[in-house]
Amino acid sequence: MKKDDCIFCKLANGVIPTRSIYEDADFKVILDAAPATRGHALILPKEHADNLYQLPEEMTGKAFILAKKLAGSMTEILGCQGFNIVQNNGEAAGQTVFHFHIHLIPRYSDDGQGNFWEPRHYTDETLDEIRSTLAK
Amino acid sequence: MKKDDCIFCKLANGVIPTRSIYEDADFKVILDAAPATRGHALILPKEHADNLYQLPEEMTGKAFILAKKLAGSMTEILGCQGFNIVQNNGEAAGQTVFHFHIHLIPRYSDDGQGNFWEPRHYTDETLDEIRSTLAK
Repeated sequence: MKKDDCIFCKLANGVIPTRSIYEDADFKVILDAAPATRGHALILPKEHADNLYQLPEEMTGKAFILAKKLAGSMTEILGCQGFNIVQNNGEAAGQTVFHFHIHLIPRYSDDGQGNFWEPRHYTDETLDEIRSTLAK
Repeated sequence: MKKDDCIFCKLANGVIPTRSIYEDADFKVILDAAPATRGHALILPKEHADNLYQLPEEMTGKAFILAKKLAGSMTEILGCQGFNIVQNNGEAAGQTVFHFHIHLIPRYSDDGQGNFWEPRHYTDETLDEIRSTLAK
């Protein structure tokens, strides 16, 4: 299924040209136009899913196995010192285009992007309460 | 394979007690002790791998399919507004424990964690050069 008004459907399926670095039957991988770092790329499935909640299990497995492979080859080519795999769902999580995608982010010691979040300090009681809420 | 001096091997295999919210034959899922947000959890494989580069393909698929399932169930339980899946490799990428793990980060509109990186602005020439470096 493609979604008519979805820019990532158009990029993934060649309707709009893009800077592609990899393609197979299921995915196109393109450079992020507003990259965190040199080489920041996006894995786009050719079939539309809004987010990870909607993506079928089989495609989820395939997409992240591709992420693993590309992390390896990109690290070798770019000589980066680290690598983040990031997948955002929902505006509150920083998702800006509502077509599932995986961010492949090469990291360099001097890239200035730092850690992605600030750790919070919860009491043991709070952590116990969260655990009992989730452990069902 | 377990690694003797690895804290996450000990947590994943019950050698050290932890706040676990899910367990199966391959993985244990625990609360992050220094969470980004309420419910922040970590998927730990029971077998040691330093990072995604080392993790076998089959386990990579299984781990991220589990991430998809837990993102769904945790979103339902917590009522969060978004969800990040983050997997860090190497110190430059914010990895602090060198046993592969996936961060499951529920996001809330008011959680104060913002976007995880600052977008950079590269020229078309730079993006073309990066593309030709990577598209091999």
